[in-house]
Amino acid sequence: MAKDFPTRKDNYSQWYNDLVIKADLAENSAVRGCMVIKPYGYSIWEKMQAALDKMFKDTGHSNAYFPLFIPKSFFSREAAHVEGFAKECAVVTHYRLKTSEDGKGVVVDEDAKLEEELIVRPTSETIIWDTYKKWIQSYRDLPILVNQWANVVRWEMRTRLFLRTAEFLWQEGHTAHETKKEAEEETHLILNIYAKFAEKFMGVPVLKGVKTANERFAGAVDTYCIEALMQDGKALQAGTSHFLGQNFAKAFDVKYLSKENKLDYVWATSWGVSTRLMGALIMAHSDDQGLVLPPALAPIQVAIVPIYRKPEQLEEISVKALEIKEALEARGISVKYDDRDTYKPGWKFSEYEFKGVPVRLAIGPRDMENGTVEVARRDTLEKETLQMADIDHKIANLLDQIQDNLYRKALDFREDSTHRADTWEEFTDLIENKGGFVYAHWDGTEETELAIKDKTKATVRLIPFEGEKEGGKCILTGKPSEQRVVFARAY
Amino acid sequence: MAKDFPTRKDNYSQWYNDLVIKADLAENSAVRGCMVIKPYGYSIWEKMQAALDKMFKDTGHSNAYFPLFIPKSFFSREAAHVEGFAKECAVVTHYRLKTSEDGKGVVVDEDAKLEEELIVRPTSETIIWDTYKKWIQSYRDLPILVNQWANVVRWEMRTRLFLRTAEFLWQEGHTAHETKKEAEEETHLILNIYAKFAEKFMGVPVLKGVKTANERFAGAVDTYCIEALMQDGKALQAGTSHFLGQNFAKAFDVKYLSKENKLDYVWATSWGVSTRLMGALIMAHSDDQGLVLPPALAPIQVAIVPIYRKPEQLEEISVKALEIKEALEARGISVKYDDRDTYKPGWKFSEYEFKGVPVRLAIGPRDMENGTVEVARRDTLEKETLQMADIDHKIANLLDQIQDNLYRKALDFREDSTHRADTWEEFTDLIENKGGFVYAHWDGTEETELAIKDKTKATVRLIPFEGEKEGGKCILTGKPSEQRVVFARAY
Repeated sequence: MAKDFPTRKDNYSQWYNDLVIKADLAENSAVRGCMVIKPYGYSIWEKMQAALDKMFKDTGHSNAYFPLFIPKSFFSREAAHVEGFAKECAVVTHYRLKTSEDGKGVVVDEDAKLEEELIVRPTSETIIWDTYKKWIQSYRDLPILVNQWANVVRWEMRTRLFLRTAEFLWQEGHTAHETKKEAEEETHLILNIYAKFAEKFMGVPVLKGVKTANERFAGAVDTYCIEALMQDGKALQAGTSHFLGQNFAKAFDVKYLSKENKLDYVWATSWGVSTRLMGALIMAHSDDQGLVLPPALAPIQVAIVPIYRKPEQLEEISVKALEIKEALEARGISVKYDDRDTYKPGWKFSEYEFKGVPVRLAIGPRDMENGTVEVARRDTLEKETLQMADIDHKIANLLDQIQDNLYRKALDFREDSTHRADTWEEFTDLIENKGGFVYAHWDGTEETELAIKDKTKATVRLIPFEGEKEGGKCILTGKPSEQRVVFARAY
Repeated sequence: MAKDFPTRKDNYSQWYNDLVIKADLAENSAVRGCMVIKPYGYSIWEKMQAALDKMFKDTGHSNAYFPLFIPKSFFSREAAHVEGFAKECAVVTHYRLKTSEDGKGVVVDEDAKLEEELIVRPTSETIIWDTYKKWIQSYRDLPILVNQWANVVRWEMRTRLFLRTAEFLWQEGHTAHETKKEAEEETHLILNIYAKFAEKFMGVPVLKGVKTANERFAGAVDTYCIEALMQDGKALQAGTSHFLGQNFAKAFDVKYLSKENKLDYVWATSWGVSTRLMGALIMAHSDDQGLVLPPALAPIQVAIVPIYRKPEQLEEISVKALEIKEALEARGISVKYDDRDTYKPGWKFSEYEFKGVPVRLAIGPRDMENGTVEVARRDTLEKETLQMADIDHKIANLLDQIQDNLYRKALDFREDSTHRADTWEEFTDLIENKGGFVYAHWDGTEETELAIKDKTKATVRLIPFEGEKEGGKCILTGKPSEQRVVFARAY
């Protein structure tokens, strides 16, 4: 199987696009900007969903489902929200087609025009807060901790598989609380879940912080985010958690009667991660040989390939291979035993390598004689021959090692790609020639932020929670700054 | 908690609507015909999804995701399909909104009109077969066994929560095969999965059979279905599995090179069940006291309520209750210990009764003295006092009994509601006065089928697989018939 495709160095962007397609993760569809997520790609997304869903449920959240469509007028209820969201949207104007006059096709039935247009949800705050109004009367109805797994549509002009598509899959949490404090705590709880997921499951280290006003979610008081660094030195926003204050409660008139018998507006949060995480996962670890997946999210964690000439050999090897498979599965490890006779071992080796299967085992006649098995790990491309005894235990350990190694490698890369700039020259040089995260002082104004973006294409990714709060001077204007913020070019 | 609502006898239809809303399963949204599935209802749907998804995967299927939108022209590719599907649909005509002239709202931007309208998928055969064309070259690419969990939209004029909504959630399987035989076997495999799910998980007995040409899926060669009977004597189609022949392969020009090096069109199936199953589940078992859920799909299988006057009593009871909870959870039973002090035990009892929780335990000071616990089962509304010793084992058995009992009750009801009619008078009398399934002879023509529907509102639900194939005379026309078919009024 030849999977000729560019190296990262040659053309990072083409490398990514080709990898997504050739590794059977996703492809473009006949509908502009909408992707098809192929079975292999979707099975990774299912693993992501399962891990996140468990963390949401373990912290008291439930899933629900709200309508795909939102009446156009709902967007105008929250002033900032309409500015940010009700623009590049798919608009449903009619509800019926009819046979065309030539009888060969269908045309829109002009008699079936909707009185009010419906917007395909780009995000669901408005329809959900219109619903919460009915659910919330008193403090006894609070908190509401609801999440939804859904598809959303934002009519992006330039799309890239997983990273920016017109339709994408995501989860959106929408919570309602009695107090500001409780809502703020929820926002942080979720941000920490996102960070934990990125680091423990995806093997991707993330920075946590707060967005600038300019990068804030439309309608939020504060937007918290996690930011990851890709191998080309560009940042990728991997998840956001918004403290919405009472903005949506006011826009949709959602009040509750407190224990003290006072009426007050409810406090809100919303938060989401999307199939964009697939893009982050692919870009964070993969190499010029193809996809590299962390064991925690790999649909197939171990592939076993038999090597044989004669049918008797296959029979004998299969007995052993299925034994190993069973032992591994008993440990919760997913295994594919690939005894297809339509492909040769070499083809299978490169197939599993290209698709990022963390561990590949090969068993041949000589292994059977010696009681050994060849073990190849995808992350380092190393091979070794191990005794079969206790192999399930060894492989389980190896998978843990691979998971660790991928995280460490990504962390090392991020540390090597993180710099401080104290002058405009240093800053532009770093952004232009090194990429990565640049910690620098900024005067805190939107004007400066936009000017920097305009001159360098770098944006403030976040104002970090951690690190010294030493003062300094803005790299562009020289005006005073209280702390460094993190700049980068970003996806 | 007063949940006043009509009895089934008084007003079955209103009983259903009220039950869905008052048991917190779903409600109507601000968007006509689109429902909000509330957390409690959604958690039942999640259990349905998990059980079905496992059965699909155990039989070799994978999930994938295809676009929400379908180009209008795709519908015209398959002649029968366009007739059946491309009519009552949500049509996206524009991709942008802009601020209105008065600056107070948003209006559709007429400059952002799509060249070709997009249809929100009512079902995905067309977009999927357009995709499969790219995936299939040779026999080595077959079979494709793919399923999608998704939302679909059909612009229904009269909607009812779960039973018929403009937007609903479902799974749609789309498979591609080398041979007719293999595709037919797939169609039956899935029908059997659906029947097993309905009977083992939902506790709802179903008839299996094939639809008449008139009731066939638009574009199918044959539509197989499972039909359930509701307590009002009306039938409900609970799942369909379609053998599509080569219709879609021909419409989208999908050919494969066989082992014998011949080019041929691919054979196809599609199959689906939807949130309509929620309607079937609710209507099949519930009673005038509220919802009744089979343990296999109940989000909370056991609720434990402490009864106390003094805080010390609660403390003591809690220790015991949490012990029981833990022992039950170790057996995979989901338990809610409800020690909220904001509600009284009586309120909690009726809450869990109304919400169909299969088993409710109550523990009071006297129980603590005697080492007993009060056990109430929802299906029969019986209560008994049991010794706490070995309680987890007793409850596990009881849940099995409840699951069995619900199925048996539904089966008895169906048997009591199944009749044979040999004359038009018998037939109309049964349909009009008794309801249920009526086995009768039909001459096999669409004309007669429609005439019977017109006169009685009863339709041929299916031509059963099982049962004697004795000949007879059509109840309406007296023309010869080879076997009885099943008539009923239906949802």
